[in-house]
Amino acid sequence: MQYVKIKDVIVEQIESGQLAPRQKLPSERKLAESFDTTRVTLREALSLLEAEGKIYREDRRGWFISPMPLRYDPTQTLNFINMAKQQNRIPKTELVSARSILATKQASELLDLPPFSDVFHVERVRYLEDRPVVYVTNYIRPELVPTLLENDLTQSLTDLYREQFGLVYCQTRYRVSTTSLLGNMAQALRATAGSPAMLVERLNYDQDGNLIDCDLEYWRHDAISIESLAKLER
Amino acid sequence: MQYVKIKDVIVEQIESGQLAPRQKLPSERKLAESFDTTRVTLREALSLLEAEGKIYREDRRGWFISPMPLRYDPTQTLNFINMAKQQNRIPKTELVSARSILATKQASELLDLPPFSDVFHVERVRYLEDRPVVYVTNYIRPELVPTLLENDLTQSLTDLYREQFGLVYCQTRYRVSTTSLLGNMAQALRATAGSPAMLVERLNYDQDGNLIDCDLEYWRHDAISIESLAKLER
Repeated sequence: MQYVKIKDVIVEQIESGQLAPRQKLPSERKLAESFDTTRVTLREALSLLEAEGKIYREDRRGWFISPMPLRYDPTQTLNFINMAKQQNRIPKTELVSARSILATKQASELLDLPPFSDVFHVERVRYLEDRPVVYVTNYIRPELVPTLLENDLTQSLTDLYREQFGLVYCQTRYRVSTTSLLGNMAQALRATAGSPAMLVERLNYDQDGNLIDCDLEYWRHDAISIESLAKLER
Repeated sequence: MQYVKIKDVIVEQIESGQLAPRQKLPSERKLAESFDTTRVTLREALSLLEAEGKIYREDRRGWFISPMPLRYDPTQTLNFINMAKQQNRIPKTELVSARSILATKQASELLDLPPFSDVFHVERVRYLEDRPVVYVTNYIRPELVPTLLENDLTQSLTDLYREQFGLVYCQTRYRVSTTSLLGNMAQALRATAGSPAMLVERLNYDQDGNLIDCDLEYWRHDAISIESLAKLER
């Protein structure tokens, strides 16, 4: 199939370094011309490259070559900022909102709370080299961290929990699945509505086995690679 | 946006049980009529539902409601068959091919072999309730399991390693990313070329720390949910 061949040519150009990470691709019109193909076929090739995480689209700005994904080990406490720095990346966090709300259905289920409980709701966008890569929602049980919202929440929550409240993440229950980006989340990540995403959900427990919070991380799927070493349970 | 509303209506019908797992959706023409919308808008709604894993497409057969995903814990040795049975699913394995080959570039890199090494190459398709859900390629170092290919390879490899060769998976290095299905893999999973997929790569080590094999698992992305409980390393 012609579009698979076009895809392979572009992959080769990426792997040989002719196309560099974060580089913008020429317009679809120009690409179609240079491959001597139709816009429809070209778009099929681009959408394969997107599915494979080789390129990504920024809404109304065009297509770009994906940088290396961030290696993310769900069994480590390394927070986003440290994880990024350790991999020579430049992290940034932007606070979208932080408030106390009545637990939504989703929050009560995740945190196992009775109806009409209060819960802290923190939404943030995280960047690598000025590219927004993940939209993170935290739901936090307020009892253990009552003054949390008074802090600068662009900091690591893990650090705040430990330094201000003596709570340490000791166990996490996580789930990885695929989904798509919509609405304000898509917008915050500069993604076209419907773009593919990787969803990481975590329930985090402290040293006494208490559930502290849950986080829902909607990743640009090309920006993350989940990797871990596991000792197997027999 | 209209297609998001249509998506929400169908999600509601799934959650309320009006649409049952594995049920076939009406044709796109009929659906477009009943939502009083265009084929283009309807397809956007369907492709969102696909991205979220709520429905899946079988090539030339149409759209179906996704069954519950299989919960997959990469830190457990449970093989596919036992994992499926434990979750009251009906597993089946089909052997595509099993032979000794000269290691490909990918195989030598993964298994850390010198060029022109021999390697066993086993390809299988795994089913749940007669639906193909994952295409698995194993590359296996032959030294430790020289007579492996003489066995019935629709059985669990883990069982064969243990019972015939005294090898036990004790540690695994895994990576989860997203990709798309193409060519014979798409065909074997009855997927349209370009369908989204979840790729699980594992390097498996025995009780003495020797690398036994690697497996590349291309999952229909709606058919799997990766879940685990991790004690965090501080």
